[in-house]
Amino acid sequence: MTRETMEIIGIIAGCCTTASFIPQAVRTWRTKSVDDISLRMYLLLCLGVILWLVYGYLVGSIAVVFANSITLILAASILFMKLRYRKVSSKSLDRNP
Amino acid sequence: MTRETMEIIGIIAGCCTTASFIPQAVRTWRTKSVDDISLRMYLLLCLGVILWLVYGYLVGSIAVVFANSITLILAASILFMKLRYRKVSSKSLDRNP
Repeated sequence: MTRETMEIIGIIAGCCTTASFIPQAVRTWRTKSVDDISLRMYLLLCLGVILWLVYGYLVGSIAVVFANSITLILAASILFMKLRYRKVSSKSLDRNP
Repeated sequence: MTRETMEIIGIIAGCCTTASFIPQAVRTWRTKSVDDISLRMYLLLCLGVILWLVYGYLVGSIAVVFANSITLILAASILFMKLRYRKVSSKSLDRNP
């Protein structure tokens, strides 16, 4: 298998894992409800994705750099919404009206 | 920078992104509340992580294979809980008592 074929598999993998955060970001944007989302998950995820970017750059993997750049934007936006809406969530208001 | 140093950065990155799913899995396990979690996110994520495993194996990256093996277990467990609890969620019951 050529290096190009491997990189294509990596790019498809990256498209899937990166695109996976789109429905979550859209759902959170629409509902403004973030109670079931873990803050620590998105803090750790953003840190990890930044390190994957460094790794991808060092080993010269286009797939890793490409995928993690977009993942970082999406994960950071979900993290931002978690921080933004966690106190005004309708469910929080139900518990603390 | 040696290949070993790069792989260490990759392993730390993998530990962060993989570990990021632990707080989400624990939170979902405890609350059994999955309304704010996107089903499509975890379906796409599992597919993508499987492809990353293939990619890591093909390019011989220990970091990619190691990280994605554990990520798959955690993401699949969150997906399972999303499917398992989405109808018996307390919030769903509030809406459809």
